[in-house]
Order: sequence, then structure tokens, then C-alpha cells
Amino acid sequence: MTLDPKRTISELKELRELTSNDYGAQRVAWTDIWLAARKWFESKISRLPVEHHHDAAGNSWTTLKGDSPKALLIGSHLDSVPNGGWLDGSLGMLAGLEILRRFASEFNGKPPLTVRLVDWADEEGARFGRSLLGSSAFAGTQTIAADRVRKDRDGITLENALKRCGVDIDRFSEAVRERENAAAYMELHIEQGPVLERLELPLSVVLGTKGVERHAVTFFGQEAHSGSTPMDARHDALAAAARLALEIRKIAGQHTDAVCTMGSLKTFPGIATAVVGRCETTLDQRDLDAEVLAEMLRDAREASIAFAAEERCTVEWSRIWSIEPVPFHPQLIKLCEDAIRETAAIVHRMPSGPLHDAAEVARAGIPTVMMFVQSLYGISHNRIEDTKEEHLELAVQALNRLAMKTADWILEGKYEVTFA
Amino acid sequence: MTLDPKRTISELKELRELTSNDYGAQRVAWTDIWLAARKWFESKISRLPVEHHHDAAGNSWTTLKGDSPKALLIGSHLDSVPNGGWLDGSLGMLAGLEILRRFASEFNGKPPLTVRLVDWADEEGARFGRSLLGSSAFAGTQTIAADRVRKDRDGITLENALKRCGVDIDRFSEAVRERENAAAYMELHIEQGPVLERLELPLSVVLGTKGVERHAVTFFGQEAHSGSTPMDARHDALAAAARLALEIRKIAGQHTDAVCTMGSLKTFPGIATAVVGRCETTLDQRDLDAEVLAEMLRDAREASIAFAAEERCTVEWSRIWSIEPVPFHPQLIKLCEDAIRETAAIVHRMPSGPLHDAAEVARAGIPTVMMFVQSLYGISHNRIEDTKEEHLELAVQALNRLAMKTADWILEGKYEVTFA
Repeated sequence: MTLDPKRTISELKELRELTSNDYGAQRVAWTDIWLAARKWFESKISRLPVEHHHDAAGNSWTTLKGDSPKALLIGSHLDSVPNGGWLDGSLGMLAGLEILRRFASEFNGKPPLTVRLVDWADEEGARFGRSLLGSSAFAGTQTIAADRVRKDRDGITLENALKRCGVDIDRFSEAVRERENAAAYMELHIEQGPVLERLELPLSVVLGTKGVERHAVTFFGQEAHSGSTPMDARHDALAAAARLALEIRKIAGQHTDAVCTMGSLKTFPGIATAVVGRCETTLDQRDLDAEVLAEMLRDAREASIAFAAEERCTVEWSRIWSIEPVPFHPQLIKLCEDAIRETAAIVHRMPSGPLHDAAEVARAGIPTVMMFVQSLYGISHNRIEDTKEEHLELAVQALNRLAMKTADWILEGKYEVTFA
Repeated sequence: MTLDPKRTISELKELRELTSNDYGAQRVAWTDIWLAARKWFESKISRLPVEHHHDAAGNSWTTLKGDSPKALLIGSHLDSVPNGGWLDGSLGMLAGLEILRRFASEFNGKPPLTVRLVDWADEEGARFGRSLLGSSAFAGTQTIAADRVRKDRDGITLENALKRCGVDIDRFSEAVRERENAAAYMELHIEQGPVLERLELPLSVVLGTKGVERHAVTFFGQEAHSGSTPMDARHDALAAAARLALEIRKIAGQHTDAVCTMGSLKTFPGIATAVVGRCETTLDQRDLDAEVLAEMLRDAREASIAFAAEERCTVEWSRIWSIEPVPFHPQLIKLCEDAIRETAAIVHRMPSGPLHDAAEVARAGIPTVMMFVQSLYGISHNRIEDTKEEHLELAVQALNRLAMKTADWILEGKYEVTFA
């Protein structure tokens, strides 16, 4: 049985049919539709010579045992945001399945190394606001003690939602056991941005996931009557915030691939007839280089202080969240470039702005790489998320090449002859 | 009985005691506390040789009949915003009362012209969102057909709230009858801004009330992931709005006394991880010169269109509200300047940014002028609103001088000798 990328597309459509409605995919982790998606997936592996189990954090592992216990891990997630797209997560799982089939078929059920396919539990964090839940348990970076009391919109705790799906929070940390013999990890994902579409390229190697500095930045001025307060007597908190909203673009612009976003701005009292007395903003900064990230944070902070002073306001910062940049493995990046070049002639190199389970795996010290396939319109987390079918096919082929090359790398060249 | 400005201060404190709580004045129109304030006021005029009645719109008229039916009108309002200040409106009423007393006393109850003191109903519009309600009925510019169905926070209609206070909405327009014989109108008010305090001057003549152009300005961009969307691929609606928030300061700065305010800015979806797809703002522009106001509106609109285009967004404008500038009467402005100069040596000239009942009176074609007394901290509509007592005394003296001069002007010089 040879690799059949068209089957991947067909299966993606089958999953969409099963787990979407008019508003998009509804495979929110720990819900019945998500469980149905997993059950459907298990039906797909039922006739393969594999072992299947859920780990202590609810991650779903499908293992094709090989001559060597050294394991090549291929992962993604079946869960989606509410009203999500048909490819986000699912593509990686079903491409991985196709490659697992290829390994099983080529070697009569016993490849030279072990190949494991993992469906991470709750990548999106859509229901409880905690993303990368299952992969963080695998990586040993989980924060379940704090997360277990999180509640969804109906007041159900994360702990109870997981229990209903067979996950015992008290054993959550035992998922680290799955790291045994893990030699490399790879993940295919849609880009979720406009970069490849603008370049008219199907595929990119992903250099790592950007670090994030996310802060609440609040400017304090003086509420005043819009009619009676002369322009030069104002302490306009919105003016100070507006200057920062524009300055962050210059700050990001000094670095390749860096991004700074003011996603939320709130005015108080927020009425037409009052100068803004308080302005609450959020600042999200991302880069793959930790030094660049620190520099951007410093620049934004200094700019905000200067703007506040010039507008006779004050400013306060508080960190909402941060994560360090996670660069992927240099050798695997090289192999991924080769695989893409052999498949699609031209390879692009880019960091990932969004986080992925791959970042958690890499933090656990396992050599990791990701591959992006072009997204249409740069849109994701929405039912209109889409990718050209020809690009999906190329992605499956390239991921297969990457898997072969990585197997060879894990086995230190012993495998290459077989593959060739 | 001579003019006693200290009595005015004493009565202001008496009213504060009766109608305020720990959060400030609570004389919201059409409420029991407002009715109590009016009843208290009526007790103050009970021994004066005056006629008192409420007109069809609920305005309270106290008339001291003179030899001539030609009437000098002195007006203000007893109503306040919730948690308001002790002087906003009340000062004008109690200073007017003191001047009425002075006229009654000096001429043994029969001055050479008629003097009328009016307490306008619902200047603030705090409960139903319709300010200048009573004075607009007087001026014939009321919009009661639209306003009668307005509801307060408890769902009570304006129509029913007024009925409870004895005002029949169907007869509302009959308040125009009070314009008969009105020869001039004057109003003393706290500045509600920081101008006189910064100049260290107690009093200003008011040149008129600024016209207002108030618009909702909404920028439409493209919501996008903060991590995966490169800076140069964004359609950031907040960036376009931020540029307008800063540009309006340049636009206002080209004209003396003009103001432009962005008081509200809302971001959608308004989350830290998304580039702003839609940004809703309000723009409030004010000037005393209609041409300047039109020019500022044109400038802001053109700037917004340019910014939207440069940010690859679009922009839509919709008018929330507007009112033309109302310049006061040149001869009364001159008399007011003289009165202030004689009282406090130095006179300032400024337009009013906030609206006042005087604007409605002026629109009715009655010669009108206002006088401002310094506010502390530039703050109003707040319990900390305040004015130095020495300035309050000067204000009563200056208003009295203005009343005498205006009476003389109305009577074409026949009165001056008496006053001198």
C-alpha cells in the first residue's frame, strides 16, 4: 500500500461531515463531539498492526512497534475551537495516519524503528482557557494544580469535565512516561496566517514557536468635560494609548518576523462628552529570538512612559502571560527543508506566531520540527479556514519524506537504503 | 435691603444640606429631591412681592412686576446630575434671587421694569437623556413628540414622570407664551472648566455657546491572529483610529478655543490575541464659529478617510447629534464686560463649551448673555466641584451690576440715573 494523499483529504471531509455544523467544526475538547471524533479516528486504525491507549492526561497514542524501541513521534490534535475550521489539527492527525499506514505497509507491520502517532488532548483550550493541556503534561510543564478548578461557561470544572472522559486529575502528571524512547517529533499544521499565500508557496519549514510577552498597559489621565476643557489643559489617556498603538509598529518593524499587537483598548468613562480619564490596553509581542523579544518589551515600556509623561498621564504595566521562544531542532529543520524542496521545489523558512503542541515537546528536550502548509485568506479559527487540495496533497507527501529522513537520522543512516 | 452676596452662599449651603448625600447633589429633575429643592426655593420667595407659577413645560417663573411690562429675565436651573456639585445651576438661581430681592427692595416692590426669575425644568437631562428640556419648550425648539417616549433606567417614560410633577405633555408647547415682553436674558454659571483658574481670574463674560458636531466614526479592518499575521499584512482598525485620535488635536489646534474629543473607543473582537477588525469611536467637535466647526468636521472626515486607506481599512461616519453655535448679544456682552471690570478689575472673554439654557433663549431671538465664575480643578458634575467663596461673592455683585446695566439698556437710559 503506497502513500495516498487523496485518502487523507477524503478522510478530512468525512471527519468534517461527522463533527461540524453550519457554523464550522465543533470538536471542542472534552465534549461529546470531540469524543465522537476520537472514536471515529480509532475506527480508522482498527485494522492496522498497532497498539492504542490513552495516557494519564488524555492524550491518545497509536504505536506501531518497530525493530528499534527508538520512536519517531508524529502528532497533532483532533480538537477544535467552537465554529472552527476543518483542517486546524485534523490535517496533522490524518496526514500522520497516512504515514503510519505507509510505515506499516512497507515493512509488513514491523518497521526498523517505532512510529507513534499522538492526538494531543485539548490543544486549543477553547472550553477552559488553558491551551496545550495534554502536551504540557507530556512535557512535564503542566500546571494542573492551578488549572483543575477552571470552569467553563456552564460552571463545570476542568477536573469534572476530564473525569467524565476518563482522565483522573490526580494522575495527570504520569503522562511524562510517554516520553520514553521518544527520538524525534514532527507536526504538520496549516499556517493560519497569510505568509505562504502571499509568497505563492505551498509549504514552509517552521523554525520554532515565537516567545510571547503579553501585558496589560493602562494609562491614567484625568476625566474632563469635552466642551469646557481646552486642548492644552487635558490629560488625555486615550492620546497616550494611541501613541503607543502606533509606536509598537515601529518597534516590531526593527526586527524580521517580529509582531506587536494592541488587540484590546477600552476607554473610561467612555462617553462622547468626556476626555478619556483611563485607557486600558493589551499588548501582545512575539518573536523567535529571546533577546529581540526582551528588547521589544523594553522599547514598548520606555515609549509608554515617555508618552504618558508628555500627555501628563501615568502608565502601569502588568504581565498577563509570557512564554519563552522555542527554537526547533537544527538538524530536523534541515531535513524538513530537504523534504519540502524535493516535494515542492521551493522551501520557505518562518517561525510560528501561534503556539503549538510541538513547542511543549521541544521544551521536553525531544528534537522537534514543524511543517506549515499554506492557508487561504490567512484565516483560521473560523469555518472559512481553507487550504487548496493540491497543497494538502503536497503536504502529506512532504511530511512522509520528512518522516523517512527523520527515521534515517534516528537510526544513524541504517534506514536510508531501505527507503531509497 | 442691600445686596447681600454672603446670604447667597449661605442659601447655597442650605440647599446642599437639604438635597445632597455623601456622593453629592441629587436634585435630578422630576424626582422627589428636585421637587423638594423647588419647594424650598418657593419658601424663599414667599415674602417677596412677586407672582409665581409653573409654565406648561414645568419651568418655574417668579415675576416682580414693574412699571414697564418689558421684562428682564434672569435664569438658571435647580436640577443637578446624580452625584453632582453644589453650585452647578443653583448658583445662578440663588444669585438671581438675591438680585430680585435687591430690585424689590430698592423700588418698594415696583421697579421701573419687570424682572423675572426662571428655574428651567430639566437642564441636565440626567434621567431621560434630553437636556435643556424646559428652555427648549420656552424657545419653541422642543422635540417633545420624540422625547415623550424616552424611558429612565426603571422603564418609566418621560411622559409619565412629567405627569407626576403636574406637566401635561400635550400642553408642553404652550410654554412659548412666557416669551411675551421678554427683553433680555442673563445667566450666571460656574465655568465647569479650568480656564479662569489657570488665568487666576474670577469672572468671564461668555461670548456664546459653541456649536457641536458629534459623530460615530467606525473603522473596519480585518480581524487576524496576533501571532501569525505579519505587521505588513494587517488591516488594523485600531491603528487607523489611533491616528485619528491624534490628528484631531492638530485639527483643533488650528483654531482658538476649538475643541475636538475622542471620548469613546471600542475594539472588536477586543482580545489580546487578535488584530482589531473593527474600531468604533466617537468624535465630539465644538466651536463658537460655524465656519470653523464645519472646517474641523471636514478636516477630520478627510483625515479619517486617508488613514483608513493607508491602513487598508474603510471608515464610516454617522451623525449622533449636532447643534449650531449660538453667539450671545453684542451689546449685552459689552455690558457684562463692564460689570465684571467694575467688580473685579479684569475681564476675560470666552465661549462656553458646555450647553446652557441661555443658548435656547438666544435661539428664540431674545438678547442674551452669560457670565462665568471660576471653577476649582476644572471639575463639574462631581461632588468635588467647587468655587472659592470670595469668587461667589464677586459673581453675585457682578451679576447685580449687569442686571442694572441691562435694565437701563432695556429702558433706553431712563433707568441709569436711578441706579447711579
